[in-house]
Amino acid sequence: MRLLRIGPPGAERPAMIAADGEVYDLRALTADIDGGFLAGDGISRAHAAQERGELPALDITGQRIGAPVARPGKVVCIGLNYRDHAAETATPPPAEPVVFMKAANTVVGPDDEVLVPRGSVKTDYEIELAVVIGQTARYLDTLADAHSVIAGYTVADDVSEREFQHERGGQWDKGKSCETFNPLGPWLVTPEEVGDPQNLAMRLWVNGELRQDGRTKDMIFSVFHVVWYLSQFMVLEPGDVINTGTPAGVAFGANDFPYLSPGDVVEAEIEALGRQRHIVGRA
Amino acid sequence: MRLLRIGPPGAERPAMIAADGEVYDLRALTADIDGGFLAGDGISRAHAAQERGELPALDITGQRIGAPVARPGKVVCIGLNYRDHAAETATPPPAEPVVFMKAANTVVGPDDEVLVPRGSVKTDYEIELAVVIGQTARYLDTLADAHSVIAGYTVADDVSEREFQHERGGQWDKGKSCETFNPLGPWLVTPEEVGDPQNLAMRLWVNGELRQDGRTKDMIFSVFHVVWYLSQFMVLEPGDVINTGTPAGVAFGANDFPYLSPGDVVEAEIEALGRQRHIVGRA
Repeated sequence: MRLLRIGPPGAERPAMIAADGEVYDLRALTADIDGGFLAGDGISRAHAAQERGELPALDITGQRIGAPVARPGKVVCIGLNYRDHAAETATPPPAEPVVFMKAANTVVGPDDEVLVPRGSVKTDYEIELAVVIGQTARYLDTLADAHSVIAGYTVADDVSEREFQHERGGQWDKGKSCETFNPLGPWLVTPEEVGDPQNLAMRLWVNGELRQDGRTKDMIFSVFHVVWYLSQFMVLEPGDVINTGTPAGVAFGANDFPYLSPGDVVEAEIEALGRQRHIVGRA
Repeated sequence: MRLLRIGPPGAERPAMIAADGEVYDLRALTADIDGGFLAGDGISRAHAAQERGELPALDITGQRIGAPVARPGKVVCIGLNYRDHAAETATPPPAEPVVFMKAANTVVGPDDEVLVPRGSVKTDYEIELAVVIGQTARYLDTLADAHSVIAGYTVADDVSEREFQHERGGQWDKGKSCETFNPLGPWLVTPEEVGDPQNLAMRLWVNGELRQDGRTKDMIFSVFHVVWYLSQFMVLEPGDVINTGTPAGVAFGANDFPYLSPGDVVEAEIEALGRQRHIVGRA
């Protein structure tokens, strides 16, 4: 099952895409797709309501798609989690997950405009498999427990300003939290529809040119390991988003690809999770 | 004016303390003290309602005090912002603010239990002047603009696990985001009652022993500078909290003070902002 949010920013309506590809309106069931909905077994209730024929169909033609989860409590990110990306940034593969954060209000819709910050000359892209948490996770015991707290998966572009991140003193968060820096979506796809999260192809193009071409099997720390690991250091809550790292091919890497400029078109796709397409603007 | 939240965790009631020291119930005005209340001119409305005698008095004897703002969208922190603290950690004073983040769900009440994380041997304290944002701040032009987006000030203990922060690979956030790691309060004090935020004494004791004894005038980057600076890198929103850095005297510093252990009592006080007292427990 796929969950999505449709409509203008701040006024999105909750919807689902059933196995047959039909889109259904979830407003009879919930005001929004958020932590409360996910924690309250909302996905099962939506599935059951659709099976019973209780949900009205919805025509979403031409409408904006929002991020598939409203107001995440936090966006936690894993750095250098693909061997080829660590190599292209001349960094040894980490011995344990590298953790940083983005401001949660960086999250925008998958096709919303991404803004180059004022004064930026090194705005970069990073396609990532994003995990959405469905149940509170605190000191999980096993990787199976990690599996059970995941509501689903979606696509993120962990947009990054490399000068702010590396050359302005201190910690990475400064280059990760700029306005619009986390396009998320198009859909939240449930685990049973995704299958093995470590066997997904992921690609990102800029102006039609393929820049990143990876597979989630090349993660250094698996999705379940990352969720288990994070739960030892913080309490993960329903609706939280985890960006699990990016493969090689970013502008900051060894390829000398150009950084993003206003007018650029970024497309990012993960197998089974759909495709984003955002145009770059100027803050 | 001082704003506070009274009652059990998750069910706090909004209240205010007037100039005469009386406590008044704000439930007729708002369900909570949060970003929406602050953005909607809630502080002025509360003040006016109290002046008109419209607010019922409230007896808070024996009741728990919660954090003075509900569900911050983010908690942004400034590192190494006091010369003496930079020196005690053998770090040169930064050329521009060092920025990192704490998970927003670390925020607890000022007198709530602080938990030493599992596996921790280096849980540390940091008294900080916390700023609460009252209006959206994006690319502020001047320090005066920074002043105008501040709803008020409060006390924070930016609890930190130094091994997680420095010895477990990567970024500081890993040692800053553990459960209960941000006691906040007791009150949100409005700027006109605080006066000059750069002239406040701040002290922290562990088990009655004075550990930190600083003044906000020793900040490297002033409160207004920090707010202005952050607004160049991220959008600050009503209800967001900024921890503006800690003076010398932490356990991680040159004094070889012991780290926190279960049973320890931490008291932290800033002039005009009140005092916290939290007991250390075990996760």
